[in-house]
Amino acid sequence: MSKTLKFAGLAGAATLAAVPALAQDAAAPDINPYIFTTLLFLIGGFLVFWMAAGFAMLEAGLVRSKNVTMQLTKNIALFSIAAIMYWLVGFNLMYPGDGWIISGWFGTFATTSLEPVGLAAEEAALDYASVGSDFFFQLMFCATTASIVSGTLAERIKLWPFLIFTVLLTGLIYPIEASWQWGGGWLSELGFSDFAGSTLVHAAGGFAALAGAIILGPRIGKYKDGRTVPMPGSNMPLATLGTFILWLGWFGFNGGSQLAMGTIGDVTDVSRIFANTNMAAAAGAVVALILTQVLYKKPDLTMILNGALAGLVSITAEPLAPSLFMSLIIGGIGGAIVVFAVPMLDKFKIDDVVGAIPVHLIAGIWGTLAVPLTNGDASFGAQITGIVAIGAFVFVVSLVVWAILKAVTGIRVDEEAEINGLDMTELGIEAYPDFSHR
Amino acid sequence: MSKTLKFAGLAGAATLAAVPALAQDAAAPDINPYIFTTLLFLIGGFLVFWMAAGFAMLEAGLVRSKNVTMQLTKNIALFSIAAIMYWLVGFNLMYPGDGWIISGWFGTFATTSLEPVGLAAEEAALDYASVGSDFFFQLMFCATTASIVSGTLAERIKLWPFLIFTVLLTGLIYPIEASWQWGGGWLSELGFSDFAGSTLVHAAGGFAALAGAIILGPRIGKYKDGRTVPMPGSNMPLATLGTFILWLGWFGFNGGSQLAMGTIGDVTDVSRIFANTNMAAAAGAVVALILTQVLYKKPDLTMILNGALAGLVSITAEPLAPSLFMSLIIGGIGGAIVVFAVPMLDKFKIDDVVGAIPVHLIAGIWGTLAVPLTNGDASFGAQITGIVAIGAFVFVVSLVVWAILKAVTGIRVDEEAEINGLDMTELGIEAYPDFSHR
Amino acid sequence: MSKTLKFAGLAGAATLAAVPALAQDAAAPDINPYIFTTLLFLIGGFLVFWMAAGFAMLEAGLVRSKNVTMQLTKNIALFSIAAIMYWLVGFNLMYPGDGWIISGWFGTFATTSLEPVGLAAEEAALDYASVGSDFFFQLMFCATTASIVSGTLAERIKLWPFLIFTVLLTGLIYPIEASWQWGGGWLSELGFSDFAGSTLVHAAGGFAALAGAIILGPRIGKYKDGRTVPMPGSNMPLATLGTFILWLGWFGFNGGSQLAMGTIGDVTDVSRIFANTNMAAAAGAVVALILTQVLYKKPDLTMILNGALAGLVSITAEPLAPSLFMSLIIGGIGGAIVVFAVPMLDKFKIDDVVGAIPVHLIAGIWGTLAVPLTNGDASFGAQITGIVAIGAFVFVVSLVVWAILKAVTGIRVDEEAEINGLDMTELGIEAYPDFSHR
Repeated sequence: MSKTLKFAGLAGAATLAAVPALAQDAAAPDINPYIFTTLLFLIGGFLVFWMAAGFAMLEAGLVRSKNVTMQLTKNIALFSIAAIMYWLVGFNLMYPGDGWIISGWFGTFATTSLEPVGLAAEEAALDYASVGSDFFFQLMFCATTASIVSGTLAERIKLWPFLIFTVLLTGLIYPIEASWQWGGGWLSELGFSDFAGSTLVHAAGGFAALAGAIILGPRIGKYKDGRTVPMPGSNMPLATLGTFILWLGWFGFNGGSQLAMGTIGDVTDVSRIFANTNMAAAAGAVVALILTQVLYKKPDLTMILNGALAGLVSITAEPLAPSLFMSLIIGGIGGAIVVFAVPMLDKFKIDDVVGAIPVHLIAGIWGTLAVPLTNGDASFGAQITGIVAIGAFVFVVSLVVWAILKAVTGIRVDEEAEINGLDMTELGIEAYPDFSHR
Repeated sequence: MSKTLKFAGLAGAATLAAVPALAQDAAAPDINPYIFTTLLFLIGGFLVFWMAAGFAMLEAGLVRSKNVTMQLTKNIALFSIAAIMYWLVGFNLMYPGDGWIISGWFGTFATTSLEPVGLAAEEAALDYASVGSDFFFQLMFCATTASIVSGTLAERIKLWPFLIFTVLLTGLIYPIEASWQWGGGWLSELGFSDFAGSTLVHAAGGFAALAGAIILGPRIGKYKDGRTVPMPGSNMPLATLGTFILWLGWFGFNGGSQLAMGTIGDVTDVSRIFANTNMAAAAGAVVALILTQVLYKKPDLTMILNGALAGLVSITAEPLAPSLFMSLIIGGIGGAIVVFAVPMLDKFKIDDVVGAIPVHLIAGIWGTLAVPLTNGDASFGAQITGIVAIGAFVFVVSLVVWAILKAVTGIRVDEEAEINGLDMTELGIEAYPDFSHR
Repeated sequence: MSKTLKFAGLAGAATLAAVPALAQDAAAPDINPYIFTTLLFLIGGFLVFWMAAGFAMLEAGLVRSKNVTMQLTKNIALFSIAAIMYWLVGFNLMYPGDGWIISGWFGTFATTSLEPVGLAAEEAALDYASVGSDFFFQLMFCATTASIVSGTLAERIKLWPFLIFTVLLTGLIYPIEASWQWGGGWLSELGFSDFAGSTLVHAAGGFAALAGAIILGPRIGKYKDGRTVPMPGSNMPLATLGTFILWLGWFGFNGGSQLAMGTIGDVTDVSRIFANTNMAAAAGAVVALILTQVLYKKPDLTMILNGALAGLVSITAEPLAPSLFMSLIIGGIGGAIVVFAVPMLDKFKIDDVVGAIPVHLIAGIWGTLAVPLTNGDASFGAQITGIVAIGAFVFVVSLVVWAILKAVTGIRVDEEAEINGLDMTELGIEAYPDFSHR
């Protein structure tokens, strides 16, 4: 069962949100399935919330110590902004129900309303879960999309233009493209298949990041005389912790996207998703471990971490249909993608500080393309259409927004600030004031 | 539904605990609601447990590196002591059922007993959840209260007097004041309303911390020639991680305080609480971000982190009744409180190392006062009475205990130890032995 | 209810896994108990997954900064390898059902298959939970066993021989010995009792670590002129975080091992386990705090952390039967064991970098021996037999494997690499490149 199939219910949610009056279902929902599915959203939601901490730690560990406070500031700020924007406009824009402004393409603007306190069973707005739990769960996906961008653009972007972009990404760009599929729009009509968001969330975040990286340019000194200068991350335990947090959160990300836990079939499917998700991550890590040993004679921890994450992104488009063996293959290829794509990006002088573009964009595309390998209902044509449509929309809109921001406010700190580090120049707070720096 | 309304059930728990004989209900509880609510306590409980790690990381990140090991030691020790004291006396003192020593004011002393292994349904001690899960959940609130104190008094208090205070706080002070409301005491009779503990937990911890800060005095060099000398925290990623952990744990703190998940109405309420809690935290962070930008021209990460936490504390007294918009307002004002209260405390030369008093005490009072704005059953009179009563009790008793400890054992390390750091002088273990210090 | 009692069901799982055809139960399972127990496995599983992060942080915090990247690399790699090996052979070897090669001693080889997507209720392979959730949960225990080894052997073992050992440990050694009890083998027939794995998981990991430590020898400079040279861990907050993570994960480890949550009795038992587990950890921490104060005049944070962990290991063999008071005693003795065993190991010049042998092996044996104190169905004879049998098997096989690895590939880095640190010499990535080193 994919998110699209739940559209009928979600439309109800959106209607509820837009119109204060409650749906007048004669019959109350079945109590236990309703509680189980609501619980799935709540547990899934808090696990995906936890991914915000994972991104913050991963990115704080992979930037240099002079930019860590800034990276942390961006991460907590972007999550908070996403939470507000998704309430203000995102949720209803993404799930317009019958209220599309342009049918299948553009939803309605309205803040989110929840059910009243102490809801009587027969007044339930949805027949399968609470609107509040659904909003809570979906909000976390919106925030994830924004988290992906901050890592790529680290160490040189100004705080406020980045946050303005976040406002637009979480309030408009993500909800619109996600509505095409999960809101019951034209992509879902077309048969596009993206279970938990390899493209809708991860590649979308990656496209927004790529557009930003192109407009912003590489860090000073990153590419010199045709060589790529390594700028090692300042804290490997933090980066590893971030990866483990993301891995944990991903059980909620993929498992919760089953959107139902009230039957034996559904809870067994959720279990399958948990096992497959874990396998894909493990395979991505092991492949990156072996490949970096073979190619560079030394295993590379940051590649292994990104390999695990790429495995997770790869399985996200279809974590249910594959066998454990196919999950191993899909995730393992994700891990390989990272090892080859990171140096490739450097060739194009696209400076992606944490490797978010290989992990989220390229592995996200791979995962989406791989869906028809295990899910007979999917077609390569629809998958490619979805990737191209979402990619073009997010990339072009992001490019325009970044370009406007560059023209109007500037998006890059000045050279001296970049060299001395954003922490002291922009924020006045060092991340590790007691430790000497080289 | 507030904790007070569940008192009938909780009284049963206390009776069970005090008297080994089981309640003789003729009928067994409804099985699924019983399992759902027990599960809510278990999930809520492990999430609130996780807050102990959050406090440890937040405080370790906000003290200077020479005092980090001590701060960690205090945090794991205080949690462990709370776990033992709450079993030894706290739980039954807090929920005396019919066994008050002074009715509505002072409960009974008895250790906690759980149900026997392999309980038959018709022998269930409570009709809505297991005593074990309730004890596990409530214990975590007791530990949270103690966690609040350690941050304020960091970098100068001796370990053992602090732990002795913790014994009294978790075994007596917290359970007694909490019994007035959640144990069915006089404040609940009066109509005081504090859903998950803005006052009972957070302001109470803050009052105990304030009393300690007054007796203990500020750190050497903190206030010099009328100026406040900044003493920056040693590890911003840890402080940020701690904040994210607390934010995650708070879903259990507030959501679990619904105390029921077995009906469509209850699980929908829990969802509402999750969504509101998240919104208040986000609003607190964004307001602190904007205010520090406006006031100081530079966003201040520690203020943003504390803003999120203050948003969480503010919504804790009533996370259910507000709309998402009102949650944004309530949490946002919490964030503003932090920005203004931190310098204000410094004016009074009250040295609160991590900002726990603004976050937990002042925002806790704000949240409690705000309840009548959204919950028609609450009154400002009862709210003020509760705050004053709990505040006076906790503050005065704490002041006396701190004064006695000061007289008997001394509570402050000597000057040399404070300057050289507590880690080497008191514990002999550096937190980061491999890194040079400035 | 112990894992053994669930063997009938697990045998079904194994049969399913080995043979693609589904069990042909005429009747569908009861829906709500099936969902509850599956959910217990999923929640328990993600909590135990989280322990992998806990081990990584604990070990990264307790090694010197020059070996941190290597320790992180080992931890993420070993988890990933465990995930693959347990699918490839471990799960079915451990739960052979009727397919033993040598009855009660040695199971069958087959990869794990999950139920088909969208399972109809009447086709359910197990009558109490999904195979996928069971596999997911049990896999995490296999990974835990491997995590224990990496800490002891830190700072001197080569990466690849360690990973080869991990392949054998997670694919063969652990599944075989665990099958004797949880797979319904000869130890379960004998009446051995080990609820969640004090011996099967923790002591087993400890025996494998001990064998490795003997073959590998101590770190250069650790024992000099009859003295033990302290080599302090590089990051106390990380070690503390790791301990809190493990403590949190342990609720899943022990609570999930109830293997059932669909009745009032089962969920009440799970609650009891949560409360007891927490108490044992708290008692272990407090005892280590007091003992190090008394013996060394200064509380020792690493001992307190290991005390909490030893309390957790001690209660793991029987977290259900004890009262809270007996849990305090059992866990407290675990904490004392750590304080006395750490210097004892040093006397034998067994260099256990993180104290994993006292925590997992010695406290694991203590916990297993303590079972008959509270569980009338257990006997000291069976407990000793189980410990000796598993200990002998794991220790001897591990010793042989380590000896072969030493002869064939070498298992120790060269002297220069050890002195300069494994991070730069073996991996080329410093954990904290921006901080000066002493």
